[in-house]
Amino acid sequence: MIAKNMEALVKGSSVIRKMFEEGNRLAKIYGRENVYDFSLGNPNIPAPESINESIKKIVDTEESTYVHGYMSNAGYEDVREKIADSINKRFDTKFNASNIVMTVGAAGGLNVTFRTILNPGEEVITFAPFFGEYKNYASNFGADLVVVSPNIVDFQPKLDEFEAKINEKTRAVLINTPNNPSGVVYSEETLKKIADILNRKEKELGRDIFLISDEPYRELAYDGVEVPYITKYYHNAIVGYSFSKSLSLPGERIGYLVIPDEVSDAEDMKAAASVATRILGFVNAPSLLQRVVAENLDAKVNVEEYDKNRVALYEGLKKLGFTCIKPQGAFYLFVKAPGEEKAFVEACAKEHILIVPGSAFGCPGYARLAYCVSHETILNSLPHFATVAKELGL
Amino acid sequence: MIAKNMEALVKGSSVIRKMFEEGNRLAKIYGRENVYDFSLGNPNIPAPESINESIKKIVDTEESTYVHGYMSNAGYEDVREKIADSINKRFDTKFNASNIVMTVGAAGGLNVTFRTILNPGEEVITFAPFFGEYKNYASNFGADLVVVSPNIVDFQPKLDEFEAKINEKTRAVLINTPNNPSGVVYSEETLKKIADILNRKEKELGRDIFLISDEPYRELAYDGVEVPYITKYYHNAIVGYSFSKSLSLPGERIGYLVIPDEVSDAEDMKAAASVATRILGFVNAPSLLQRVVAENLDAKVNVEEYDKNRVALYEGLKKLGFTCIKPQGAFYLFVKAPGEEKAFVEACAKEHILIVPGSAFGCPGYARLAYCVSHETILNSLPHFATVAKELGL
Repeated sequence: MIAKNMEALVKGSSVIRKMFEEGNRLAKIYGRENVYDFSLGNPNIPAPESINESIKKIVDTEESTYVHGYMSNAGYEDVREKIADSINKRFDTKFNASNIVMTVGAAGGLNVTFRTILNPGEEVITFAPFFGEYKNYASNFGADLVVVSPNIVDFQPKLDEFEAKINEKTRAVLINTPNNPSGVVYSEETLKKIADILNRKEKELGRDIFLISDEPYRELAYDGVEVPYITKYYHNAIVGYSFSKSLSLPGERIGYLVIPDEVSDAEDMKAAASVATRILGFVNAPSLLQRVVAENLDAKVNVEEYDKNRVALYEGLKKLGFTCIKPQGAFYLFVKAPGEEKAFVEACAKEHILIVPGSAFGCPGYARLAYCVSHETILNSLPHFATVAKELGL
Repeated sequence: MIAKNMEALVKGSSVIRKMFEEGNRLAKIYGRENVYDFSLGNPNIPAPESINESIKKIVDTEESTYVHGYMSNAGYEDVREKIADSINKRFDTKFNASNIVMTVGAAGGLNVTFRTILNPGEEVITFAPFFGEYKNYASNFGADLVVVSPNIVDFQPKLDEFEAKINEKTRAVLINTPNNPSGVVYSEETLKKIADILNRKEKELGRDIFLISDEPYRELAYDGVEVPYITKYYHNAIVGYSFSKSLSLPGERIGYLVIPDEVSDAEDMKAAASVATRILGFVNAPSLLQRVVAENLDAKVNVEEYDKNRVALYEGLKKLGFTCIKPQGAFYLFVKAPGEEKAFVEACAKEHILIVPGSAFGCPGYARLAYCVSHETILNSLPHFATVAKELGL
């Protein structure tokens, strides 16, 4: 007797669960080292050593009722101030503690944002390929996700289609850069154009439209590529950040929202985001970890390891004849299926290579490879990709 | 431009914020020790020492990518198994890991449960006095909270009114025992009667009705009173537990749901609760703290300190002529306003005593005192309560 709109989700979810189980089944038979599991975005690089040092220092020196206790729903004031200062220093912005709401990861932050701004029946626009959960985040609050079809030339968003899809129900636009699953970073030019369109449409429709940037991969950018900070380009912009990947803490559920004073009704928006944090049952972001990340705002996992994987996998697959766009960020590579998506995924599975079909990201005919795995896994997988390439006639 | 149904919440929320600010304002003028702040349920007793010991040991001995990494959305398998074993040992139940879903506190667990079972337009019944957030948890998913009026004789639920309020829209009944704000523990007799009514109504209406027990205060029971375990009395029962109060970890956001195999469509329910955990943005309960609580299932804060406060405050207020029910559990005392609720709260504020009006709990004419404060605060507050009693003609 689950809720009606959960039924399809439970069925869909079991497809992913089957992939897990398949990975475990294969590992049991052939050994974990003979399974090339590119299915999950679970960081394989340990957190910086300073994280555990901070954890130990904090529990040793701060009062139990303080470090494990309730604070304001938006988070510890000093933590939020340190984060605002750090953003200001890096991106030449002017935030203060009141612009920051600590969240249970970026996923928590997006749900808080949606609860804050969405009325049932409204629409959120996103660009394929996109993280499949966005649809569920919108549906949690009776809103609909509207998807702009993928631009398979360079995976920058299709702006004409985007503009055509904005209407009197549109409340928000959700972007994700560096992108999961394409690895593409939206250029400054792209962001400026999106901002232009939104400014025009806000006036035309006489309503606020928020631009929300989901940024768990901000710190994972390669070849010196810049990831522009959206609050500098558009007034109604909200940033959802996570430390999950930058500090390899995905299980700890720690991130934050940035709500600039430039957004419409900023005071209400900030207050409502705190209320949403409370009433959705987060109450606050985990307390100890709030204090830990505040001490580690300049720390970062060793991104060079991901970069090494990125280059090896990209070069390796190109050499075998696969078509893929070179990722500029995140730890995903989006590869074109030679022929049918399903046949490709199955041919890979036969070689013990686990990948996620592009359909899961609104972009059929592709597949996502998460290269947050050991470098050996990358190297050892390539001969098996060669077999797949041969079988599929590349 | 916040969502319409957030507007009233933001306004309402600022009333509570004003109370905080009033406390801080008074503390600045008169000194923190001259303000008797009974407004917040924030534990004042430190976590058991074993908590920080576990934290340090775990980060020193377990792999970073494991202890800070993603696990299944329901939580670490071994943690869930230990919790199931612990419940079985204490309450003679037969749960296993599959019946446990780790949650971001009890508030997170209730939202997960509501997302799992509620369709928009359905109803959840609860009994006044009740924790005001329940209304918001239901409204998050387009459902309505239906309140059974308080029984001010002994604060056990009014069962006739309850039965009359069950209809074809009722999907769940939410109880909270030991109760916030009354401190009352629902008796075994009460639970049996509730179960009888629900069994009858399920048959009559041909639909599942879930009994959800919100249990953050389970371990805080005094005078040897037993808190019955609801899954033993009703088939469609779900327990929402939190370590916030039992281990003084409210900021860490760690708890669990128990979904027994006896509930209707149990497999779907368990799977859907995992999915709801993911799509609401919790993703999973904080990873390190999951592993910490699993090592501390037999630990408990020093409940005797709360008990000492309970007795001193109850006896003190009775002696001054106030009417209040002796709390059997939690750390709240619910006192009858001598005359108007508002005048009582204001008279207390004049004496620097901060309390929460009963209206916030659906029970006007009363006020809640959270006695999770230092024993000195209790003792020092009593002369000021005496002044209030005098002023109000007690």
